[in-house]
Amino acid sequence: MTSLSLWAEIFRDAEAAAKKEPAMAAFIQAMVLDHDSFAQALAFQLATEFGQPRMPADTLNKTFCEIYADNANVWTAGEADIRATRARDAACNDYLAPLLFFKGYRALQGYRVAHWLWTHGHKVTALYLQSMISARLNADIHPAARIGEGVTLDHATGLVVGETCVIENEVSLFQDVTLGGTGKEGGDRHPKVRHGVLISSGAKILGNIEIGESAKVGAGSVVLKDVPAHTTVAGVPAVVVGASLDTPALTMDHTLEAD
Amino acid sequence: MTSLSLWAEIFRDAEAAAKKEPAMAAFIQAMVLDHDSFAQALAFQLATEFGQPRMPADTLNKTFCEIYADNANVWTAGEADIRATRARDAACNDYLAPLLFFKGYRALQGYRVAHWLWTHGHKVTALYLQSMISARLNADIHPAARIGEGVTLDHATGLVVGETCVIENEVSLFQDVTLGGTGKEGGDRHPKVRHGVLISSGAKILGNIEIGESAKVGAGSVVLKDVPAHTTVAGVPAVVVGASLDTPALTMDHTLEAD
Amino acid sequence: MTSLSLWAEIFRDAEAAAKKEPAMAAFIQAMVLDHDSFAQALAFQLATEFGQPRMPADTLNKTFCEIYADNANVWTAGEADIRATRARDAACNDYLAPLLFFKGYRALQGYRVAHWLWTHGHKVTALYLQSMISARLNADIHPAARIGEGVTLDHATGLVVGETCVIENEVSLFQDVTLGGTGKEGGDRHPKVRHGVLISSGAKILGNIEIGESAKVGAGSVVLKDVPAHTTVAGVPAVVVGASLDTPALTMDHTLEAD
Amino acid sequence: MTSLSLWAEIFRDAEAAAKKEPAMAAFIQAMVLDHDSFAQALAFQLATEFGQPRMPADTLNKTFCEIYADNANVWTAGEADIRATRARDAACNDYLAPLLFFKGYRALQGYRVAHWLWTHGHKVTALYLQSMISARLNADIHPAARIGEGVTLDHATGLVVGETCVIENEVSLFQDVTLGGTGKEGGDRHPKVRHGVLISSGAKILGNIEIGESAKVGAGSVVLKDVPAHTTVAGVPAVVVGASLDTPALTMDHTLEAD
Amino acid sequence: MTSLSLWAEIFRDAEAAAKKEPAMAAFIQAMVLDHDSFAQALAFQLATEFGQPRMPADTLNKTFCEIYADNANVWTAGEADIRATRARDAACNDYLAPLLFFKGYRALQGYRVAHWLWTHGHKVTALYLQSMISARLNADIHPAARIGEGVTLDHATGLVVGETCVIENEVSLFQDVTLGGTGKEGGDRHPKVRHGVLISSGAKILGNIEIGESAKVGAGSVVLKDVPAHTTVAGVPAVVVGASLDTPALTMDHTLEAD
Amino acid sequence: MTSLSLWAEIFRDAEAAAKKEPAMAAFIQAMVLDHDSFAQALAFQLATEFGQPRMPADTLNKTFCEIYADNANVWTAGEADIRATRARDAACNDYLAPLLFFKGYRALQGYRVAHWLWTHGHKVTALYLQSMISARLNADIHPAARIGEGVTLDHATGLVVGETCVIENEVSLFQDVTLGGTGKEGGDRHPKVRHGVLISSGAKILGNIEIGESAKVGAGSVVLKDVPAHTTVAGVPAVVVGASLDTPALTMDHTLEAD
Repeated sequence: MTSLSLWAEIFRDAEAAAKKEPAMAAFIQAMVLDHDSFAQALAFQLATEFGQPRMPADTLNKTFCEIYADNANVWTAGEADIRATRARDAACNDYLAPLLFFKGYRALQGYRVAHWLWTHGHKVTALYLQSMISARLNADIHPAARIGEGVTLDHATGLVVGETCVIENEVSLFQDVTLGGTGKEGGDRHPKVRHGVLISSGAKILGNIEIGESAKVGAGSVVLKDVPAHTTVAGVPAVVVGASLDTPALTMDHTLEAD
Repeated sequence: MTSLSLWAEIFRDAEAAAKKEPAMAAFIQAMVLDHDSFAQALAFQLATEFGQPRMPADTLNKTFCEIYADNANVWTAGEADIRATRARDAACNDYLAPLLFFKGYRALQGYRVAHWLWTHGHKVTALYLQSMISARLNADIHPAARIGEGVTLDHATGLVVGETCVIENEVSLFQDVTLGGTGKEGGDRHPKVRHGVLISSGAKILGNIEIGESAKVGAGSVVLKDVPAHTTVAGVPAVVVGASLDTPALTMDHTLEAD
Repeated sequence: MTSLSLWAEIFRDAEAAAKKEPAMAAFIQAMVLDHDSFAQALAFQLATEFGQPRMPADTLNKTFCEIYADNANVWTAGEADIRATRARDAACNDYLAPLLFFKGYRALQGYRVAHWLWTHGHKVTALYLQSMISARLNADIHPAARIGEGVTLDHATGLVVGETCVIENEVSLFQDVTLGGTGKEGGDRHPKVRHGVLISSGAKILGNIEIGESAKVGAGSVVLKDVPAHTTVAGVPAVVVGASLDTPALTMDHTLEAD
Repeated sequence: MTSLSLWAEIFRDAEAAAKKEPAMAAFIQAMVLDHDSFAQALAFQLATEFGQPRMPADTLNKTFCEIYADNANVWTAGEADIRATRARDAACNDYLAPLLFFKGYRALQGYRVAHWLWTHGHKVTALYLQSMISARLNADIHPAARIGEGVTLDHATGLVVGETCVIENEVSLFQDVTLGGTGKEGGDRHPKVRHGVLISSGAKILGNIEIGESAKVGAGSVVLKDVPAHTTVAGVPAVVVGASLDTPALTMDHTLEAD
Repeated sequence: MTSLSLWAEIFRDAEAAAKKEPAMAAFIQAMVLDHDSFAQALAFQLATEFGQPRMPADTLNKTFCEIYADNANVWTAGEADIRATRARDAACNDYLAPLLFFKGYRALQGYRVAHWLWTHGHKVTALYLQSMISARLNADIHPAARIGEGVTLDHATGLVVGETCVIENEVSLFQDVTLGGTGKEGGDRHPKVRHGVLISSGAKILGNIEIGESAKVGAGSVVLKDVPAHTTVAGVPAVVVGASLDTPALTMDHTLEAD
Repeated sequence: MTSLSLWAEIFRDAEAAAKKEPAMAAFIQAMVLDHDSFAQALAFQLATEFGQPRMPADTLNKTFCEIYADNANVWTAGEADIRATRARDAACNDYLAPLLFFKGYRALQGYRVAHWLWTHGHKVTALYLQSMISARLNADIHPAARIGEGVTLDHATGLVVGETCVIENEVSLFQDVTLGGTGKEGGDRHPKVRHGVLISSGAKILGNIEIGESAKVGAGSVVLKDVPAHTTVAGVPAVVVGASLDTPALTMDHTLEAD
């Protein structure tokens, strides 16, 4: 499926929704139907979300459109994320809902432009975006963190991702998860989360440790040491409780017993 | 005590507060004294909270007033919730504060209108409300969930309630609680919380499991299996640590030892 | 270093930032460069954050400026907090970022004015501020709580601090921490956190118990009993896992093993 | 034609317009289709026009709805005015345009509620409305003036109507017209404009003089003396230039020669 | 009467009005009662009137307060104007109404700060203010014009005052008056209006001509030549029609015959 | 001089102004420097001016950009108008001030997009724009009127241009001018203003009459009959007072004697 058809599908669903629920028509018109591409609609929504009187939405919109125009990978990552979200989230049956309504999806796209700004010398603007994402969408992601594609942030309330984190492709993170540092010294001090990992709600992972490929971290776990690939850990502090043979980020299987 | 006297008491307290603290007078006037009934005041407040430029508050207000006018049970449930909140919350001495200021109470009432919309075919409007409740009040409650009356959501930050959850009457939930699913398949996959249950802060309850009547779930617990009625569970993963003889949702007793 | 030089340093960094990133210039101008003192800039920012159409920002600004003018300790505590935040947070290299962008720092300063209002008879105004701090910055701090100086609230999402809490000077609290009560009776029912304590992310501390001087509470712990001074506790429920010889609030060392 | 059918016709035209021009749909929805009666729609529009942050639109809306509910003559006068406007204005083919877009019509309806407030002891609120009508719609009508029904204020920019003016039924006034006083003494000092009069653009009429029934005042005239009924006056100062046999307010015939 | 007592009288009347008409209380609180001096209240109101999202009201407020603090003559001129307005306007019985509601008075005070900005090198800011005064209050006064004290602009809609105009003290101008230039060349090209002059509504005065002391210009006149002191002119073009023995700006006598 | 250089000159002047007056920097940035072309900047400004909560500025902006993109003559007419304004207005020394601040210039450009909408079937949208131009900029121009290029509307307060008016190229109109109809019948009923005409302030021209090429209409005149080309008329009613040998719209010479 090409990028065009993703946007075409969103557009079609938006038209149907606006027709079926007239009370939503003006909102959907502004958020989707007034735009010509996925990138343009996304830029507009992020700008609306993060603007305020002293940093007007249309100034942000212009900035985001320019980033997207010159760096297609920023918004194509957003396409990969929305496909991942729909595939993994049992409550999600279309691409329209994540784009319009999912806090985690929107926070992640906000991070993606903040990250571009941070790595291109606009650090204060990036910090502004981080603070707005954190205040309005309740997910605090440092713009210096490096996050791959096809990532799902489910619900996202309370998520914290630290400055030197690395999150690879195809990872799923849930609400209340912390990927934090330890100590007051700078340098590389946050977790590295490898491909395919699932981190369940409320897990706290602290320090420059590695969560190996396709590992699973159980809900409410506290992880202070490396987690081997293809294992499941759980508990406070977390210990290995089993294998993790599939890719848990894709199955979204939070159970601990059957691995 | 009849419905009229609840509103009369709120109105009287609002008048006294506006008089005592003139800085709050305009706010209290708009939120309470300008209205003729509990339902009208509640509709106005929810509309103010969840409106935005593309979905104006007065359009929402009209919608909410119509729902309340034709379905008294939606707002009488809100009356039961406010009575429950006052009775259980040691920091709450009147009905005015929950109505004006308590995030959990307001999020729950937002859910109630979203649920009505969801079950009457206005799913996109319901999802809009869910997203606004989640972004502005930090509680993510799926509009398809079924929630009884006399329910207290204390503080509510980080609360997640999934699509197929059932929460019966007289339940108390605290901040950072997740009632989540497991797996990417649809269908009935979220917890069923029975009458009188207390779920303490940070507990993560995952899967289509039952938390039996008057059970208590300790803070920070991770629950992946059924919890029998009248028992207390705690730990990661949670195990039975004692009985729960009273109705813990009413006593709000979070201790684990003395049960 | 005197108070003047803190403001002078903030002002200098703000000028440099506005020059380096023109997109931020209007924001920085309004938030910092338009003001003549730290207290004035802080009052303006809090008023902007917590104002809304029915409680206008400039009315709040006037109130906050008056409180600061007559009670210097309210804003000098904010100076101590910002110094603490810079000293302890490895991702923070100046005083400008906490002032403009750090949710926890801003929530704490909001609490400080709300606390003054609460203790001087303006309880409804104080509750209004508590509700706005909780909704917009995701940290729910009761205005009656007593909090010392040099306190860091890192990230702050999901933080809950109850009505009868005491937090002494030089304490560091992380996201998702609850300092909660137990039971529905009023009276003194919340934790007392002594000097130098570090409470890691997700810890739930319930009841009128004492967390002794320089103690450390591990991430995700559930604490229902007193914690002796200079000890580290962890687990659900929390047990002593080691000593805590330094002042962990200052070192920000979340590890459990090496104590 | 009954009052119901006026509203029914407006509603039908609004539906058609919203369908034909989707860009206007949200505006028309809010201004017309969200309402159940002419009076309700009118109250909402006036409130939207004259509200501002310190005098919120919904407070005004509530006030206007109450005035209309208890004093039907206030809004039925507005029905007579809208019928008059459509009958007389060659550029007006429906009732929808005056209601939504005609500054003069809207200013007159604003005056009608201000007049009710003035005569019922709410003089400051009435002056507030006068000032907003003058600033936003450019027509300065003192709320104490007495104005009949079936009145057309065409374009209305620059219109001034003084405190002791009387304007009877079926009168047409154009832009830049002044009905002013002379001297700094109070008392009855402004013009009395009788039934059927047409006052053309730019005419200045000063002092407690009478413009007799069905008289016509030519454009740019300056009138300082009584004008007999059924005559046409013109010039600076105005002199009688002919008869005025028809009712010029209805024919809207501004020519001077053919009378 | 000293400056203090003017403010004291305004404050007292504002308190009474807020008490008598609760619907206006929040507005009056913000516009008058929240302030400590006439200058401060005036600055706030002008800033509120002329602010917009890209030029925030509080930035303007700060600018205006600084101008007033360093140049008392700017706001004491405003005191002289408000006294003049009350003395001359038969519909005005207090100082509160001009301050809050009179478009002409407010436009003149806006001009006074714009003039200060223009003459101190802030020409673009001055032009911004001119444009806002013109758009929002319908009076177009070039900031380079020189205007004395004790001036009344009654109603003010349509007033135009050109770049090289001079208006001396104790002058009264009415709506629709133009003090304009002629020709496309720059230089001194606008009217000079001397002490005590009354210019009635709709008069057009064009070119670098002099309207002599205590002269009166009749309504709707077109003046293209000097007007001698103590004479009354009227007509198109204007001719001398009589003497003007008193000071017409003070008597506000618009009649032409009795002079 | 090409179109590019007009924009380049505006951009250069805007940069200089933002640098010289930092208080205006954010405004100038948003209005000029954020844009890539004259058309884009103009569309943004008109959208900002005429937007409101129920018809958001960015929706209008999108509409205007599309009109400009497909119909370059709409914005090139605006270039001709701005050149005309600068050439004729003695108080105007650059292109920046008309674009940012001149009510007449902005109203005319608003008319140009409204006219396009009217003639392409979007009549309600066009009427909406007319009403906003009239309320916010005080100039009431029917969108069906036909207006040429190189037109100057000076000050513009109170201007009225009727439905069947024709205004040819290189015309100058002043404040308070009416080009109105007479009678309540439809059809072609408004003035036709030929090339090079100057109509001075306050003139009222009524009926389907012709103001011949390069004619001049004196201030305050009332014109009810055709005016021959190259003549000057004045008075109430207007009579020929002399020749008009040059092109008065270009010389802006309002004098009557020397023609």
